[in-house]
Amino acid sequence: MKKGEATRREIIEKAAPIFNKKGFEGASLSDLMEATGLEKGGIYRHFESKEQLAEEVFDYAWNLAMERRMAGTEAIDNSVDRLKQILRNFREKREGLVAGGCPLLNTAVEADDGNPALRNKAKRAMTGLLARLESIVEDGKKRGEIKNGVDPEEIATLIVSTLEGSLMVNRLRERDAAMRVAVQHLEEYLEGMRGS
Amino acid sequence: MKKGEATRREIIEKAAPIFNKKGFEGASLSDLMEATGLEKGGIYRHFESKEQLAEEVFDYAWNLAMERRMAGTEAIDNSVDRLKQILRNFREKREGLVAGGCPLLNTAVEADDGNPALRNKAKRAMTGLLARLESIVEDGKKRGEIKNGVDPEEIATLIVSTLEGSLMVNRLRERDAAMRVAVQHLEEYLEGMRGS
Repeated sequence: MKKGEATRREIIEKAAPIFNKKGFEGASLSDLMEATGLEKGGIYRHFESKEQLAEEVFDYAWNLAMERRMAGTEAIDNSVDRLKQILRNFREKREGLVAGGCPLLNTAVEADDGNPALRNKAKRAMTGLLARLESIVEDGKKRGEIKNGVDPEEIATLIVSTLEGSLMVNRLRERDAAMRVAVQHLEEYLEGMRGS
Repeated sequence: MKKGEATRREIIEKAAPIFNKKGFEGASLSDLMEATGLEKGGIYRHFESKEQLAEEVFDYAWNLAMERRMAGTEAIDNSVDRLKQILRNFREKREGLVAGGCPLLNTAVEADDGNPALRNKAKRAMTGLLARLESIVEDGKKRGEIKNGVDPEEIATLIVSTLEGSLMVNRLRERDAAMRVAVQHLEEYLEGMRGS
């Protein structure tokens, strides 16, 4: 990696918790300077604008989150068990993520007005996540592991809604109860989908 | 209502969509001046600070949302049917709300770092919503309308997680599908809770 590229990468990594915690609007230049240890010119030598930095930070944070959530699932043959592993990953694999919670939840809520580039990033991330879950359900139906009547798009949407909503509830509650309840509920629901 | 109080109320109503769409950080003084038609001094004659205005805006927006979501439910005797009415209200009664989506979702995600007063408002709102749903489940259990094994706190948490999460997914999708899927899923789940 060239030196310029390494610095660029370092700026993204250090700016990521700032954007993820404070949002695009809330992340100030002085926050970014403090986190990176660079002056304004040092940051913007590598990025055209705050928008561009924020977009690359989103990609970085989301790729990390997806890696964690999908970890070890390729090795699981049965599609229902694979979905259940994704639920468990969601609940348990939280170390190593960018601080500040799920970047998709943050960006969906914070960039829903007035920041079309970030919003498009979040839209594509959501579409990608739903498509990944849908394809697991579709494979499961083809192989008879999942009942024929099950609608892949509905299951994918329900999983993402329930998990992301439980993250939102958790932010306002002392304990992690909402995530536990969400995962247990979805596990039972997925069990009911198994083909005979 | 005295004139000062009427002006105060008008400022809250006009500032509400700004805060709800742009967040506390994103709502600038010039946005607030444009929305209210007042100069800075005209706004801050009635509020000590942007924080205070934002807190009162949250209360206003949340009260409106709760009114809509609970509308007509007192008249329904059976507790399961009452919960189902709340789900339908959530999906359908969206006119008259403050523009910018659910104020609880917005505030939970945007005020989770660095804005303790607003965060406390959101925490109390969440606690109140959960308590309201829990008490309906508890009443239902006492009257034998809901099975004995059902945990009121779990059901309340699951309902709020699933609905709020579906609002988040909806923000990034073209159609209203996530909300429809969430409500239908919860309706079926609540049906399964009925006592014999």
